[in-house]
Parts: sequence; C-alpha cells; structure tokens
Amino acid sequence: MLDLATARELDGDRPRLSTDFVIPDGVVYLDGNSLGAMPVQARDRGRRVVEEEWATGLIRSWNDADWVSLSRRVGDRIGKLIGARPGTVIACDSTSINLYKAVSSAISHAEGSRVILTDSANFPSDLYVLSAIAKARGWELRTVAPEKVVDALTDGVGVLAVTQVDYRSGRRHDMESVTRRARELAVVTVWDLAHSAGAFDVQLDACGVDYAVGCGYKFLNGGPGAPAFIYVSSERQAEMSNPIAGWFGHERPFDFDPEFRPAEGIDRMRVGTSHVISLSVLDAALDVFDLIDREQVWNRGVELVSRLLAGFDSLGLEVITPREPAERGSQASFRHPQAYAIVQALIDRGVIGDFRTPDVARFGVAPLYLSHEDIANALAELSDVLVRGDLDSYRARRGEVT
Amino acid sequence: MLDLATARELDGDRPRLSTDFVIPDGVVYLDGNSLGAMPVQARDRGRRVVEEEWATGLIRSWNDADWVSLSRRVGDRIGKLIGARPGTVIACDSTSINLYKAVSSAISHAEGSRVILTDSANFPSDLYVLSAIAKARGWELRTVAPEKVVDALTDGVGVLAVTQVDYRSGRRHDMESVTRRARELAVVTVWDLAHSAGAFDVQLDACGVDYAVGCGYKFLNGGPGAPAFIYVSSERQAEMSNPIAGWFGHERPFDFDPEFRPAEGIDRMRVGTSHVISLSVLDAALDVFDLIDREQVWNRGVELVSRLLAGFDSLGLEVITPREPAERGSQASFRHPQAYAIVQALIDRGVIGDFRTPDVARFGVAPLYLSHEDIANALAELSDVLVRGDLDSYRARRGEVT
Repeated sequence: MLDLATARELDGDRPRLSTDFVIPDGVVYLDGNSLGAMPVQARDRGRRVVEEEWATGLIRSWNDADWVSLSRRVGDRIGKLIGARPGTVIACDSTSINLYKAVSSAISHAEGSRVILTDSANFPSDLYVLSAIAKARGWELRTVAPEKVVDALTDGVGVLAVTQVDYRSGRRHDMESVTRRARELAVVTVWDLAHSAGAFDVQLDACGVDYAVGCGYKFLNGGPGAPAFIYVSSERQAEMSNPIAGWFGHERPFDFDPEFRPAEGIDRMRVGTSHVISLSVLDAALDVFDLIDREQVWNRGVELVSRLLAGFDSLGLEVITPREPAERGSQASFRHPQAYAIVQALIDRGVIGDFRTPDVARFGVAPLYLSHEDIANALAELSDVLVRGDLDSYRARRGEVT
Repeated sequence: MLDLATARELDGDRPRLSTDFVIPDGVVYLDGNSLGAMPVQARDRGRRVVEEEWATGLIRSWNDADWVSLSRRVGDRIGKLIGARPGTVIACDSTSINLYKAVSSAISHAEGSRVILTDSANFPSDLYVLSAIAKARGWELRTVAPEKVVDALTDGVGVLAVTQVDYRSGRRHDMESVTRRARELAVVTVWDLAHSAGAFDVQLDACGVDYAVGCGYKFLNGGPGAPAFIYVSSERQAEMSNPIAGWFGHERPFDFDPEFRPAEGIDRMRVGTSHVISLSVLDAALDVFDLIDREQVWNRGVELVSRLLAGFDSLGLEVITPREPAERGSQASFRHPQAYAIVQALIDRGVIGDFRTPDVARFGVAPLYLSHEDIANALAELSDVLVRGDLDSYRARRGEVT
C-alpha cells in the first residue's frame, strides 16, 4: 500500500499539477466527480462578473464583456478537452435538459426502429429523461446490462444513449468500438460525458459520435450547478433540431422576429439567456487546463487511481472499478456492507468521498489537484477506519449528490 | 415637465427607496426591465457562495448551506411578490424552458379544443416556444391582437398563454378579468410575468391563474442570466406534469431510483441540479424587497412612470404606453422614426434605456432604485438630444437584450 514516504518521493517538488486550487486544510478531496474544487481563477472571475461587468457595466456588458458569445466560447474551450472541433459544443442549461434536447433531436432523424437503447448503469436521471421521451413519442426504451450494449446494438435500434462512465463502479464504455458498431448499423449515438470531460482523454470527433452532453461542475470545476454542455457533430448539425425553441436558438436573436428561424450551427441548441454569472465562473475554471499539458493531466489521473485501487486490494476490499485504465473513469470504488458508515467516518477525518446506494463507496480522482500524498493519506485513514472505526455509530443520513 | 428642483423636493431626504444598489456615477439606469441593477447583498452573497460555500464547504454545502432546498426557498420568496402561496413557485432554469414545461403540462390536461391562444405582442421568444409545442403536438397556435384576447377566448380554446406586459409598449393585460373569462370557459391559463414580478402588484392565487413563469434578472435584480421561476397553482398541482423528467423532479432524488416517481408539489417542475451560484445571488437580491413595504414600492413605480410619460407628452413624443397605471407595466415607451439614434445618444449621456424594433424607445422604471431626480435628469437629457442631438451620426448597431 502506498506509504507516505514513497508518496512524497513520487510527488517530488511538484505534488499537485496545479496550485491554483483552494483546498481546505486537512482535507483530501476525493469527490471532484460530484463537485470539483475551486480554482482561484474562478473566484476572481466570480467577483469580476458580479462587481464589474454587472454592477458597473450593466446592460452594456452584453457587448462590452461579450456575454453574447460566452456560451459559444466556453463550449469551444470544453471542446478542446473532449476532442470536438470549434463550433460543435455549446455551454448552457443543465445536463438533463441538454440530454432531453439531444435525444429529442436524435430520434427525429433516426433511421432504425423506434427503440432507444441504454444500459442499466446509466445515471438514474438519464434514465428518467429517456423514459419520458420514449413514452411521449411512442418509442421503446430498451435497457440492457452495460457489458451487453454492443451485442444489443442491432438493426432494431434507432438511438443509443449511454453514459460513458458508470457513476458507481467507474466502468468505462469503449467509446470508439461502441460508436463504430452503432455507425455500421446507422444507430444515432448520444453520449453522456458527465464523469468523462476533464478527467481523461475523450475524442468525440474521431470516434464519430453524433451527440454528447456533459456536466460543468464535476471534473471541469465550474462550481455548484455550473451550466452543462451539449455537442452535436458537424455531420449532424444540418439535421439537428431543438424541441425547446427559445430566442437564443434563433438565427438572429436581437431581431425580435416573430417567426422562429433556427440558428445555423450549434447555437440552435440554445434556448434562453445564458446563466452569465455561473457561466463566467465555469469559463475561468477552464483556464487551469490551458496551463498544463493535457497528456500530463490524463496520465496523472491514471497513476493516482491505480495507486488507490492497489491500496484497496491490500486492504482486502471488494474493488468494483476495472484495473485496466482504458476501461475505467477517474475514480476508484469498492463495495462493502458498511460502505455508508465507512464514507461517513472518512469524511469526519477529512477524507471526502461519497456513498452510492446500496453499498458502494466511491472516490473521485481529480487529476489537476490531487497528489500521491493525498492518496497515501486517504489510504492510511481508510485502513484505520476499517480496523478501528466505530462504524456502527454512523447512522444513515441522506443527502449525497452525483 | 418635471424639473430638477421639483424632483428634489419630491424626493426629500430619501431619494431612493433603497440605498442598497450600486449604480455607477453619472448613470440614470432605465433598463432594469432588461437587466436589474446590483444590490450589495447580491455582491456579498456572490462572494460567500463561491469563496466559502463552494471553496471551503465543497460537496458538504449541499447540506450545510442547504443548497438542496435553495430553489424552493427562492421560489417562495418570489411567490410573496406575485401573490402566490408557499409551495407554488420554484426558481430554476430559464424563462423559455419554464414556459415549455408549463405549456406542455397545460395542454396535457386542457379540456377545450386543441388551440393555444396568444397575442401578437407576446415576446418573440414565447411565440417560438408556443409555436414549436403546437407543431410537435398537433395543436393550433392562434395569435390575435392583445386587445382582442378576451373576445378570442371561446370554447374552442384549450390554453391561453400570454405575457402580462408588452415588452415594447408596456401595455398590461388585466390579469383578473382575462383569467376570470378563461376560467368560465375552462381554458387553462399560462402567464409570463417577465416584466411584472418585482415591478408591480401581481395576485396569481387570487386571480385563479393556473400556470405562470417569469424572469429572475429583470425587476428581481438577480444578475445577468439569473435563474427564472415557474408557478403552478395548488389546484393544478395534482395533474401537472413535466416533459423533462430529471432527477430533481423525482420524489426522492437522492435514492437514485432507476424508476421515475414524480415529486409531490412544485418540485415536480424541476429538472437537473440548480445553478447554485446564480441562484444564491438571486436569493440575496430579493432581500431588498423584505426591507421595504411592498405597497410603497408599487406606488413609487406608478409615480415615476407617470412623471416620465408626462415629460414625453411635453416633448411632443408619440407615447405608446397607457396613461392608466393599472393598464401598464413599470415602463414608459414612445415611438419615433429615429428611436434607435435617440436611445444611443442618451446612452452616451449616461441615460440608459433601450431600443426595440422597429421604432420604439423604452425606459424601464425600477421602483427600488430610481428617484424623481433620475427622471428629471433623463427628461432633461432627452429634451436636449431631441433639440441638439446629432442623431444622424448614430449608426445602427445591434446587441439589445430584452
């Protein structure tokens, strides 16, 4: 198991890839897949957008601070992290709303049968969205085990909608092979990148993905409830449609045209006014990614997760995260009958992970701000909790957030 | 026309109802119906939510800072300003998305014919949303002149969806009589309060309105792109449905139940994670309304608009805003062939209003932070612009925002 001395040696004189994050003293933060930590750039930009752009610039900031193009600019920046060319990603709304838009658009031009294929490891929230769309449109929602997705891709499927990384186990779909198979069968693909974007290398354009959505407040560190994003491939943009036709999806929003004329390009997937304050904070949070070589970021994530998993193994825990880096997201999870109590006991010791029903303890590994020393400390506390922790005293409370 | 001496006399020792707003020196801000000014409480809360709740509290703030109930708490506070009892309003998403949810729900239980009635003075964005829903569901969208709405309410109409205040002229629908007529005919009503909430007295429950939506960043001063709100009357809550079934609309979001079970009450109209930073800023902005008697706020708005309209009359302008306070929102508008240039010239002199195509100059009157002196100054500058302004030199630029 990774000990502190080895960890410090591995960290060398640069324990964290970025020193731009504010992490409270005494905290090892392994919940960045639920809510990323705060980069100082985000704090500074939060002040600026409120205290200067809003308070002083007032309505003039729509032009002077270029709020008008903010959703597009943030989208393009996110695009760099997920292998999406400029003009294919826009930052807006929430992940669920973007999924609703993406799947609604996908089914309107899917050529296969009226079946949406998904898997049982998908986010419950995604399943709700898919199920409601299927019901409203008279489609079937077909749910299979995640490892059966490729086999279940048949001519009978119109749309495939899955989340790349299982939020509990960390299991990752092979986007390249799944999407290739879908394309062979003319199945339109919709990928949820909630636990992917900012955590590891994603190549949407290269894989030939049609639609994708994702979250701004997890590995992108955009702050609580940060706006989400939506991707539509260049190939699909001509035929994409948005069921919620709002003024920012119009070709010329400021013409106040009574007739809706859908915007060319990714702007078509916008609806109302951007959440400028939240979106500005997300924009600034992305600065950190520009300061570090992305390859280094992805490698760091792989290294730290491997160390964490090896530690779990040493402690005899039932690891449910794949050992192979390409088969997992940036998290490490184990099952344990007392998982809830273990997570609570760790939180009391400053090691913040989280619990997922029914019996999963999961630990998100944000490559930007975690060190080997953090992992060694987390493992030491976990070992102590398992041996000496008064687990029965931790009563079940509720309140976790994906 | 209101002169400065009289204005100062009228203002007495309390020129503004609230001194909590930051207004840049030399600015008369008559665009609060597009983007409200910043209350200091909003600035302070913006810092706190980012720098304490997020940076230090991290994921724990979902419970410790009660982010979980923030949308409901802000909804209830807005409810007080629009005559809506607790549990009928929730703050979330954007106005257009909320309109989509409200109208989708309304048509699913409307008993009349498959016709949505609206008027030609509605926001273009609302018309887009309505038109797209009508098309997708096989309904007819029937658009009449605003003054013909009551006559057009017949048995043949299923849903009435209008904006209370015309964003150009400021003309206000009589919510009480229009809604009464709609109820007689079992027409389900959906009101957009974008230019109403925070500007004058609205009584949703008392009028028997079924659904309403509105904007957080205009007269509620919630900051650029603040989350919007949605109201569903107690009477309609049993049958309401949300086409976008996300995890926060679930009965127990944190159970991660694979099956969607819609929440009881107004939470059903939520979708994804709240935009916590923007929503916290909006929450704090509402503090100002708690510090002043609401009757006083509404009276101040009426008084200042009347002064502004009288000034326009003295200048021989073609006023298009109704003179009767009950028939208008909190704005004053005139038509002029050079309206665009007039507005630009005024902005250069620090009097910020805005232009709406094709020929409307409109001036929003936020009762909380405008004084009689502001109105006198605006009129003096306007008079000067009309007499001496080099209007031809102001070329058309674009970039206005409702």
